[in-house]
Amino acid sequence: MIEITNFIEKNRETFLGQLIEFLKFPSVSSRSEHKQDVRNCGEWLVQHIKSIGGENAYLFETEGHPVVYADFIRYPSAPTVLVYGHYDVQPVEPLELWNSDPFEPIIRNNKIFARGASDDKGQLFIHLKAFESILKTNETFPINIKFLFEGEEEAGSNHLDSFIEKNRELLSCDTVVISDTEWFDFGLPSICYALRGIAFVEIKVKGPNRDLHSGSYGGAVDNPAEVLANLISRLKDRYGRVTVPGFYDNVLELTVEEKEEFARLPFNEKLYRESLGIKQTYGENGFTVLERTWARPTLEVNGIYGGYTGEGAKTIIPSEATAKISMRLVPNQKAQEITQLFVEYIREIAPPTVSIEVFPMHGGNPVITPIDTVWMRKAKEALRNSFGVEPVFIREGGSIPICETFQRVLGASPVLIGFGLPTDNIHSPNENFSLENFFGGIKAIANYYMLLKDK
Amino acid sequence: MIEITNFIEKNRETFLGQLIEFLKFPSVSSRSEHKQDVRNCGEWLVQHIKSIGGENAYLFETEGHPVVYADFIRYPSAPTVLVYGHYDVQPVEPLELWNSDPFEPIIRNNKIFARGASDDKGQLFIHLKAFESILKTNETFPINIKFLFEGEEEAGSNHLDSFIEKNRELLSCDTVVISDTEWFDFGLPSICYALRGIAFVEIKVKGPNRDLHSGSYGGAVDNPAEVLANLISRLKDRYGRVTVPGFYDNVLELTVEEKEEFARLPFNEKLYRESLGIKQTYGENGFTVLERTWARPTLEVNGIYGGYTGEGAKTIIPSEATAKISMRLVPNQKAQEITQLFVEYIREIAPPTVSIEVFPMHGGNPVITPIDTVWMRKAKEALRNSFGVEPVFIREGGSIPICETFQRVLGASPVLIGFGLPTDNIHSPNENFSLENFFGGIKAIANYYMLLKDK
Repeated sequence: MIEITNFIEKNRETFLGQLIEFLKFPSVSSRSEHKQDVRNCGEWLVQHIKSIGGENAYLFETEGHPVVYADFIRYPSAPTVLVYGHYDVQPVEPLELWNSDPFEPIIRNNKIFARGASDDKGQLFIHLKAFESILKTNETFPINIKFLFEGEEEAGSNHLDSFIEKNRELLSCDTVVISDTEWFDFGLPSICYALRGIAFVEIKVKGPNRDLHSGSYGGAVDNPAEVLANLISRLKDRYGRVTVPGFYDNVLELTVEEKEEFARLPFNEKLYRESLGIKQTYGENGFTVLERTWARPTLEVNGIYGGYTGEGAKTIIPSEATAKISMRLVPNQKAQEITQLFVEYIREIAPPTVSIEVFPMHGGNPVITPIDTVWMRKAKEALRNSFGVEPVFIREGGSIPICETFQRVLGASPVLIGFGLPTDNIHSPNENFSLENFFGGIKAIANYYMLLKDK
Repeated sequence: MIEITNFIEKNRETFLGQLIEFLKFPSVSSRSEHKQDVRNCGEWLVQHIKSIGGENAYLFETEGHPVVYADFIRYPSAPTVLVYGHYDVQPVEPLELWNSDPFEPIIRNNKIFARGASDDKGQLFIHLKAFESILKTNETFPINIKFLFEGEEEAGSNHLDSFIEKNRELLSCDTVVISDTEWFDFGLPSICYALRGIAFVEIKVKGPNRDLHSGSYGGAVDNPAEVLANLISRLKDRYGRVTVPGFYDNVLELTVEEKEEFARLPFNEKLYRESLGIKQTYGENGFTVLERTWARPTLEVNGIYGGYTGEGAKTIIPSEATAKISMRLVPNQKAQEITQLFVEYIREIAPPTVSIEVFPMHGGNPVITPIDTVWMRKAKEALRNSFGVEPVFIREGGSIPICETFQRVLGASPVLIGFGLPTDNIHSPNENFSLENFFGGIKAIANYYMLLKDK
């Protein structure tokens, strides 16, 4: 391992320069104007994998953004690891809150700032650099490895399910390794064993056929923005509990052991509040913050708009109003069922004065994996070796919907060894990634691959 | 009068060409980027008034957009009429719904399409063309006339009150004539005797100090867009009645005569619904549509926005959310008092999880004027002469806040002889003005000035 570690140390500048190149692609998958940028980024990735010794590296077409695949397979008897990551990124708005251009990476305070730095380009890149470091310092690679990098995770992974189903053989593996999660705290390496799912919908309320003068028509015509506000106000009760009938029916309750484990983690609610600039936390009664964000489902308005939103005043009754709403799901809720319950509830409470449409945008089921497997134990060992700290098992509130597909289609449970930190500002302005975790991550992952050889 | 009418007929093309020139200025007063356009439009107006014989024509500076003033005064014994209008216009968004450029006027089906065509440049211009037509066909002008044209009516007339107060002497008059209202129906000339007032506010709800990943934080942090929706849902009850305490305290109830008069007007609710594309009307119980829009106060959300409003999905808890809200007021509500009640109510129902600010944007008091004056009778006569139909007295739901200032400061009640039609789409895309009403209006106003000579 010492040779590998030395190689990584010697190549810090090179690795960083390559990461910067990778981060410069504005691969925003949810925006049609960035379609070509996503493809360019995928093509760059294929070339890069080839240049470091990856084999069978291709851009696979899908009906959406392309998938990057590559592998390195020598020993039929060795375990096969599928590494999943995504090279697309979230939109950057509100742009004015960034301190530097989101696609011109810069380094400050030993962190690299750019959209995608942590989620997920930086973390994906850890695996490529670990792969390269082993390959350049050893006779060969210790295990069989397959890389699967997606280009539309941030847009809902709409075509990856069918890609995996169509390519079962190509993707067959013993386990899936993913670095797209974060540590519970600074200096506390964490392995995530459960993720929430998601059901994302858009509601559009349509009223009059045009914006109306609110003086001439105010009092005679129902207002779509007000109807939308009323609908939203009926989605949760005053204690933060979602009021969609049947929403909680299949929720898997936390075990006593899990609750105890969560309570032992160094969670400081005062610091949490301060870091977010909020006066108090808020959510479903009877649960702690960690329980609520990790193991309880929720519903959030992600965006709302209607009528005049510019400077100054414009006195209209808007013709329509729209909200983007996502529900985070926990085992054993199913995205499709919950979306259906949501649509039915809206239909039930919709007033007759307007027309209302609900558009399901995307969904992903929650996932939970056993922690007593060899893959999990070796992951813990590799993290301990690299960072010198005993890692913890945690859950995460976010969603990587594809995990459930890996379980279902490939029969391989994902190992979520993330290297993000709570200060990474993922999905927010000024996203960044700690260089300590980037280089420590490369060492840990290289060590993990070496350890899996002797599984 | 026949000579004047002939002059108007002969000059149709010339007048129309001048109106087009006037409409081309994008004098959007509520947008700072159009500041210079508003001024250019005002300067053009001053030059135009001079060119047709107006005297003492000036651009008066205010702390906002400039005021255009001009007069023509010969006979101390004749009545003095102050003509008020506004040369600024509403914003044009949503631009994609316009069939032609809002600032490139075009004529289709005997209507002129442009922002401001009806509200209020076209109607203001009627007075100038009537003035010109009399002056060019008579020895002199029959009455004393003063023109006062404002450049920020659509932004709340913030500086006109103080302008009028500072220039009482200059503006002193026997009556104020305003053409900024519309007819009740096609072919039914209407004089408006009451207008609603307005209180416009903006509410901003601030939550976490940045947009948060709704997976990582959903369930732990209150959502400003949801708080805003909850607040809005508590501003009206399910019957459309405003729930701000004290809101209805000073409302002047309609008389039996007024209710009967309204009921006699040719209002067809089916056509009304069809023209708006709505399935049913909606508003305060126990009142007709006309009663609700003309003589009952209301509250409308004019715009709402927060979080991600772009294409596709972005899974965030927004850092803040904003709504623009206006209340239409009736005699004897006062804008300042109602704004205060609103602010107090929001403060009372605001949850402790977020911070909420209410910004009063502008306000104007409602107005009601007696209909049995010589100014009203002569106006009715002039309309009958020009259009050959018996005019009706109506109210209007919109606001011209300055009317109340004229009453209070100059002691002159406004005569609201408007020439708009219900299909003019004011404040909406594809605003237009009927050329029949434009030219008929010039004749009616010229006749009115002539009739006032013998008051």
